[in-house]
Amino acid sequence: MVVQVDLNSDLGEGFGAYTIGQDELILRHITSANIACGYHAGDHNVMRRTVQKAVELNVGLGAHPGLQDLIGFGRRPMQVDPQDVYNMVVYQVGALQAFAHLYQAELSHVKPHGALFNMAAKDKTLAQAIAEAVYAINPRLILFGLAGGELVKAGEKVGLTVAQEVFADRTYQPDGSLTSRTEPNAMIHDAEQAVQQVVRMVKEGKVEAVDGSDVEIKADTVCVHGDGPQALQFVKKLRQALTDHGIFIKRVGT
Amino acid sequence: MVVQVDLNSDLGEGFGAYTIGQDELILRHITSANIACGYHAGDHNVMRRTVQKAVELNVGLGAHPGLQDLIGFGRRPMQVDPQDVYNMVVYQVGALQAFAHLYQAELSHVKPHGALFNMAAKDKTLAQAIAEAVYAINPRLILFGLAGGELVKAGEKVGLTVAQEVFADRTYQPDGSLTSRTEPNAMIHDAEQAVQQVVRMVKEGKVEAVDGSDVEIKADTVCVHGDGPQALQFVKKLRQALTDHGIFIKRVGT
Amino acid sequence: MVVQVDLNSDLGEGFGAYTIGQDELILRHITSANIACGYHAGDHNVMRRTVQKAVELNVGLGAHPGLQDLIGFGRRPMQVDPQDVYNMVVYQVGALQAFAHLYQAELSHVKPHGALFNMAAKDKTLAQAIAEAVYAINPRLILFGLAGGELVKAGEKVGLTVAQEVFADRTYQPDGSLTSRTEPNAMIHDAEQAVQQVVRMVKEGKVEAVDGSDVEIKADTVCVHGDGPQALQFVKKLRQALTDHGIFIKRVGT
Amino acid sequence: MVVQVDLNSDLGEGFGAYTIGQDELILRHITSANIACGYHAGDHNVMRRTVQKAVELNVGLGAHPGLQDLIGFGRRPMQVDPQDVYNMVVYQVGALQAFAHLYQAELSHVKPHGALFNMAAKDKTLAQAIAEAVYAINPRLILFGLAGGELVKAGEKVGLTVAQEVFADRTYQPDGSLTSRTEPNAMIHDAEQAVQQVVRMVKEGKVEAVDGSDVEIKADTVCVHGDGPQALQFVKKLRQALTDHGIFIKRVGT
Repeated sequence: MVVQVDLNSDLGEGFGAYTIGQDELILRHITSANIACGYHAGDHNVMRRTVQKAVELNVGLGAHPGLQDLIGFGRRPMQVDPQDVYNMVVYQVGALQAFAHLYQAELSHVKPHGALFNMAAKDKTLAQAIAEAVYAINPRLILFGLAGGELVKAGEKVGLTVAQEVFADRTYQPDGSLTSRTEPNAMIHDAEQAVQQVVRMVKEGKVEAVDGSDVEIKADTVCVHGDGPQALQFVKKLRQALTDHGIFIKRVGT
Repeated sequence: MVVQVDLNSDLGEGFGAYTIGQDELILRHITSANIACGYHAGDHNVMRRTVQKAVELNVGLGAHPGLQDLIGFGRRPMQVDPQDVYNMVVYQVGALQAFAHLYQAELSHVKPHGALFNMAAKDKTLAQAIAEAVYAINPRLILFGLAGGELVKAGEKVGLTVAQEVFADRTYQPDGSLTSRTEPNAMIHDAEQAVQQVVRMVKEGKVEAVDGSDVEIKADTVCVHGDGPQALQFVKKLRQALTDHGIFIKRVGT
Repeated sequence: MVVQVDLNSDLGEGFGAYTIGQDELILRHITSANIACGYHAGDHNVMRRTVQKAVELNVGLGAHPGLQDLIGFGRRPMQVDPQDVYNMVVYQVGALQAFAHLYQAELSHVKPHGALFNMAAKDKTLAQAIAEAVYAINPRLILFGLAGGELVKAGEKVGLTVAQEVFADRTYQPDGSLTSRTEPNAMIHDAEQAVQQVVRMVKEGKVEAVDGSDVEIKADTVCVHGDGPQALQFVKKLRQALTDHGIFIKRVGT
Repeated sequence: MVVQVDLNSDLGEGFGAYTIGQDELILRHITSANIACGYHAGDHNVMRRTVQKAVELNVGLGAHPGLQDLIGFGRRPMQVDPQDVYNMVVYQVGALQAFAHLYQAELSHVKPHGALFNMAAKDKTLAQAIAEAVYAINPRLILFGLAGGELVKAGEKVGLTVAQEVFADRTYQPDGSLTSRTEPNAMIHDAEQAVQQVVRMVKEGKVEAVDGSDVEIKADTVCVHGDGPQALQFVKKLRQALTDHGIFIKRVGT
């Protein structure tokens, strides 16, 4: 039986004179690019360049819609109306779609950003609004959401293909949720341990929670960071380990 | 021989808690709606509502991309790079396209807003950037530009259908350009005179310039205002006069 | 014993081409103006005009800082860091102060806007951040907060003069808090009833809660709306009733 | 006779999650900091941190107001009304003033940013609007402008102390203006040549124009860059050369 996994990263998060991340380098090692759409980050010029580069490197094009909160980088949870969320997803995905079209390409997936991603993992109503918006735009789009969270459930319910996302450098709770970043043991700082966590999630469908218990988890795609000094080295290490374990690194849905 | 003309208006220019114009009323009397796309005005919720209403009333859906200048309402000329303009048009038209798709509708046209419209009427390079962007998005889109200006020329050159736009309440110079708003005689304040100017432009293809000379002009579409206390009354009066003169009021391209 | 009350209203909430409210008319009937500072609404031109008009009419100048959320008009609760809130208050109050200085005037008070006001009524940490920011800018500034809420408590604690704010058209809970707007009985639609509620709060220091019980409340200032068709008529009616009951309408702190 | 010069740099130009420049390092080598005020760059948190650091290092605090154009980093010339410019300067300087006040400090100067700086060097009306705004805020503020340009003339006219700014890495025209960046010989890429140009401007009051002629120029302050890999090394080299030539490096006005 063939085991495969997708590697995704959040990219195109510069804005005007500002740059962030090492997009061009990271793009060479991942299979799915989540491209910011101008709300929490990104602008029309950055989007164009990022789409072009991703197409050249045959990386899956994904929209990465966020809250309209540039100063907070879309990371601040805020009270939003489901209808508002539906429309903000339509707007952002539509804008990115047009850039994909310039290169005779199609979007492959949608992954909400930051606070929108986190809220959608827990809030059924927001999850449904996002899933319905994505379906309305294009029912062939794959919806990325936190493994086991409300967003992937809502995606399946409306008839979308979903990709369950796991994290290499975050610890898990016994119920399968991520340990909150406010907890001291939220992050896995050891690269080797992070890599092993991913390998096990992909091969065995299990992750060891912070209390030592095993939790079932489905790992369709792994989020790898695009910035930070270790980002590039980590993704290379992760690829090597996955390959060593006979896991194919392939874009979701292919 | 059948004579026809299109009536267009700039709509969907609210933002968040702010409203502007009487969109629902004006929509009943025009054939083409130019819908703001979130840069100079408009937001994802306003766009959705405006598209829905225009579709219901069978009014042509047009994207109305502007400069990213909400505080200046896109009316301030600024130095912009052609590549930047190309990308800002792709972004905004793409976003609106997605809302049209929600209602199984297609965009019919693109009309740049404010300073972008004015700059594109005079600057060949910007005009070309806009025309190429529109063509790349969808070659069936009709490009609206100032009658006789660079934008319609650029549109024709790249292979787009264009609509030459005329103004009811503005005076013309002997070279066919609009009298600058800084001149005292720029505006036609008398509704009857404004109506007669339009009728003559449509039927005879001529307009009397400020020096009394006749200028040839092609009038495919007339811009009518969506705000102001007289806006609604004027469009009704204009429709009546056009009909009385045997001119069909029809969407461009139909 | 002399009984007095202040009437305040949120003003200067236009932005660029957008206008909202009937500032010039309302200003003639109130004693304290809460002027938006460019984050949730307002811009440098609107601020200038509103300050000028308030100074002319001898209305108290207040800063009305909000969340940096123009599209949400500062009404959406969001997760904000106390240090961030401290700095956003310093920024906005500082900007308005400079406009006051143009007219040889000084700010008299600060009232947070919308979600910031509501969050500060309940969250001690945010309340303290706001109170400390106001004190650091100018310890003579009066801090407006929800009567009985955390903000006025924090203001008193840091050594500021505070003004307890009450609402004419909102109902109260037995614990003195406002009935949530999501409840059907949150609003008082009858103008006469709203006026009587204010008169009693000012004269007796009591308000009848939704369960019929009496709640003690201190009413230093009443918030009157600056927009809506009935706004102007209501403030006139309220003034008349207060005067009829021998209550002086005077700016807080005078 | 004592010869002295000021070294200034544009700082605090990050925004939200975005950082730019090496502020902390550069601050140790300059005498005047031009701090972005939230329009073209900067936000309330960055402003606070930058003010604090500059105060600690005893660097002169300057406001660096720009056009409200974050995506263009305030570098795009645009059509602005003098009254609008006046108000945007009041707003931004006022905001920064409040942060200075937190540290018992006062602003020492104002230097407009980017397109606003360049437009003010040539356009008398805009120059006057800026000078009047600065004077109205605080007549003791020193106004920085291009050496020989309209802004310093307007500043002197309204009664402000001005500082004529020169550039190390730009070439000059025979009329004393900067060679446009669109020209191939606009920049001086050789650090040694740049340093020598500054030394001569300060000591002799002369600069060799691109045609070989000598132009008189007054050099009160030199603009040094805060970003780029060579920025830090260049400012150190410049300081050394100035010191070697017996030129004191001191804040303008001290």
